[in-house]
Amino acid sequence: MRQIRGGVTAAEGFFAASCAAGIKSDGQNDMAMVYSDVPCAAAGTFTTNLVKAAPVLWDQRIVREGKKAQAVVVNSGIANACTGKEGFDCCEETAAAVGELLDLSADRVLVASTGVIGMQIPMDCIRRGIRTMSGRLGRNIEDGTAAADAILTTDTHSKECAVEFEAGGKKVTIGGMCKGSGMIHPNMCTMLAFLTTDLNISADLLKEALREDVKDTFNMISVDGDTSTNDTVLLLANGQAGNERIKEKDGDYERFCEALNFVNTELAKMIAGDGEGATTLMEVRVINARTKEQARTLSKSVVCSNLTKAMLFGNDDNFGRVLCAMGYSGAEFDQNRVELSFESREGRIVVFAEGKALDFSEAQATHILSAPQVTITADLKDGYEEATAWGCDLSFEYVKINADYRS
Amino acid sequence: MRQIRGGVTAAEGFFAASCAAGIKSDGQNDMAMVYSDVPCAAAGTFTTNLVKAAPVLWDQRIVREGKKAQAVVVNSGIANACTGKEGFDCCEETAAAVGELLDLSADRVLVASTGVIGMQIPMDCIRRGIRTMSGRLGRNIEDGTAAADAILTTDTHSKECAVEFEAGGKKVTIGGMCKGSGMIHPNMCTMLAFLTTDLNISADLLKEALREDVKDTFNMISVDGDTSTNDTVLLLANGQAGNERIKEKDGDYERFCEALNFVNTELAKMIAGDGEGATTLMEVRVINARTKEQARTLSKSVVCSNLTKAMLFGNDDNFGRVLCAMGYSGAEFDQNRVELSFESREGRIVVFAEGKALDFSEAQATHILSAPQVTITADLKDGYEEATAWGCDLSFEYVKINADYRS
Repeated sequence: MRQIRGGVTAAEGFFAASCAAGIKSDGQNDMAMVYSDVPCAAAGTFTTNLVKAAPVLWDQRIVREGKKAQAVVVNSGIANACTGKEGFDCCEETAAAVGELLDLSADRVLVASTGVIGMQIPMDCIRRGIRTMSGRLGRNIEDGTAAADAILTTDTHSKECAVEFEAGGKKVTIGGMCKGSGMIHPNMCTMLAFLTTDLNISADLLKEALREDVKDTFNMISVDGDTSTNDTVLLLANGQAGNERIKEKDGDYERFCEALNFVNTELAKMIAGDGEGATTLMEVRVINARTKEQARTLSKSVVCSNLTKAMLFGNDDNFGRVLCAMGYSGAEFDQNRVELSFESREGRIVVFAEGKALDFSEAQATHILSAPQVTITADLKDGYEEATAWGCDLSFEYVKINADYRS
Repeated sequence: MRQIRGGVTAAEGFFAASCAAGIKSDGQNDMAMVYSDVPCAAAGTFTTNLVKAAPVLWDQRIVREGKKAQAVVVNSGIANACTGKEGFDCCEETAAAVGELLDLSADRVLVASTGVIGMQIPMDCIRRGIRTMSGRLGRNIEDGTAAADAILTTDTHSKECAVEFEAGGKKVTIGGMCKGSGMIHPNMCTMLAFLTTDLNISADLLKEALREDVKDTFNMISVDGDTSTNDTVLLLANGQAGNERIKEKDGDYERFCEALNFVNTELAKMIAGDGEGATTLMEVRVINARTKEQARTLSKSVVCSNLTKAMLFGNDDNFGRVLCAMGYSGAEFDQNRVELSFESREGRIVVFAEGKALDFSEAQATHILSAPQVTITADLKDGYEEATAWGCDLSFEYVKINADYRS
């Protein structure tokens, strides 16, 4: 497997387009479209929030019924959540409009939205945007990158990743883009991620691969603990790599899962690192745990802790907050066995072991914590399982952005 | 029942003292003592954090074994959490020192700490403080207030409440003090609360009354979602009111529960309103719910939502964040029935009903949200149960305090 440049247009047969449809008041690009010239097996994971945005309901139905998909239309600026029947009608009309222009049935068109909750989407903007984009679909890297830009809200940069690997003697590509910066606590996860691959694989295995992988990737990030109404990860596979169809969990499937995990991990880390107001990417590893679930619960609890996040913003080695967050996670562990360390490109320091604080240099700790990416490792010394979660620090800028998001 | 001035010394037979023992580096008062001249039935509720501070372990043992208690010693500045055997030994030595000076057995002495996690408490300071305080015990309102001041950390003001009611023809008093500002997400809260009453009541009923009441009071507040290692609520009843001992759930018990609920609600709201960096007290009522538990879960989820908290700081009527937080709470409800309103001394406005946003005045909403106390009400229109939770806004100051707590 090797990483390559690109995003949603990296895999064979996938096209992208974007435009400024007038949904965002500042005139920036606010719609994107991804299209495959042949029908795709489709997998998706969606928010567990009881309050689901209209596009989540629309996509869930298509994916659950095992339908083929061929296009994804995304808008940023308005989330189309808490919008009642009018909001769902909007999804239906959007899919129909795309279907008409691209000669597809409406149920081959997936939709996604991100932005302010509670506002209705102006359908005239959407129709105009779809018309513009359908004439602009392109296969260049730049087309994918422009689409990745158009789906952003409070994000500070676009997020793409692509890899190549081999299956059945054929070169296979997976590429993806995502957005997400606030209201990030995926419990897949307003993150949106769109993944495309030219792999030939059964829809059932595609779904299983995605479902399993999000547990260790998108579901292991948190910016603010708020699980969005719109979280959506879509994965389309169009078979254009020409490999023999994967129907069982063979070596090719394993290689696909590995490649998918790489892409999803990179994209998930980009979201955590670009969390609203973030200055530091926080990585929390829990190692030598008894169970995977225990390791996931503990690491996730630490990345979600406001006090740990504020500590990181201040470069303050107040490690008690990490132990506190582990303690209220609900997972069991023996605090007297835990070894806690801080690590970055500036070095590594062990701060707590055998039930109490070690005698460490505060100056060194501060130096380590001041790096743009910091890893906190809790070694439970109790087993062989591990998990990693990603978050970010809590800064003045986070408060500023969210005290004033809509204006 | 009527509210009176005072705190832990309001009830008959209770004394308080405080001093600067040198634990806080700035020379402020950092120790407090509460003492009853006769043994008390003792009830306590403690943090559910797996990582429990040493004083929590100490007190839990005394309360669980149904022992009588006669003194409580509290220090602020250091939490005595994550301190291993040395930390627990410190509690033992503290209790023994108090016992010696006041002629009590050590297991009649409860201890509590709040402050930085991971540091050891300097025992020489503690010993000096105990000596000073044991010569200063007083029954005046001012003695109680000085104690309430000494237990503060990042709090901006002391927190006391007292009421009188009648039981068995006798005047009974309940008084209390608490502290708490950050790391507040009590799951039965570093909140500490100390309640004293001169009621004559069986220890079992005292414990049950406290256990039930914290569910609707201290456990319904959140400042930052971080459940502390030190949360402790202690309630001492010394029987000095002279009422016939309450041994069953009669009218006197009901009046006691009502009075206790008033005191605990007031104290809990003081903590939420004085949350680190808070500019607004947020009250979230969920009414007409099917079950009490559903109402508690939904209201608690909203007060914990960083995005709702930041919205409140910005006086921004981004109500979708409230619905989002309800949606990920884990509790069921029908979003199409929910009626959502914002209310303060500046007026009331309904913002969402029948599945979608109402056409309201943004200027009016902003005006309502700018008050020092705002009530968000979600009417589920689905039953007869209700619950209220309290929190605060998320401000620049919160981040500042916690990026730099120890310096």
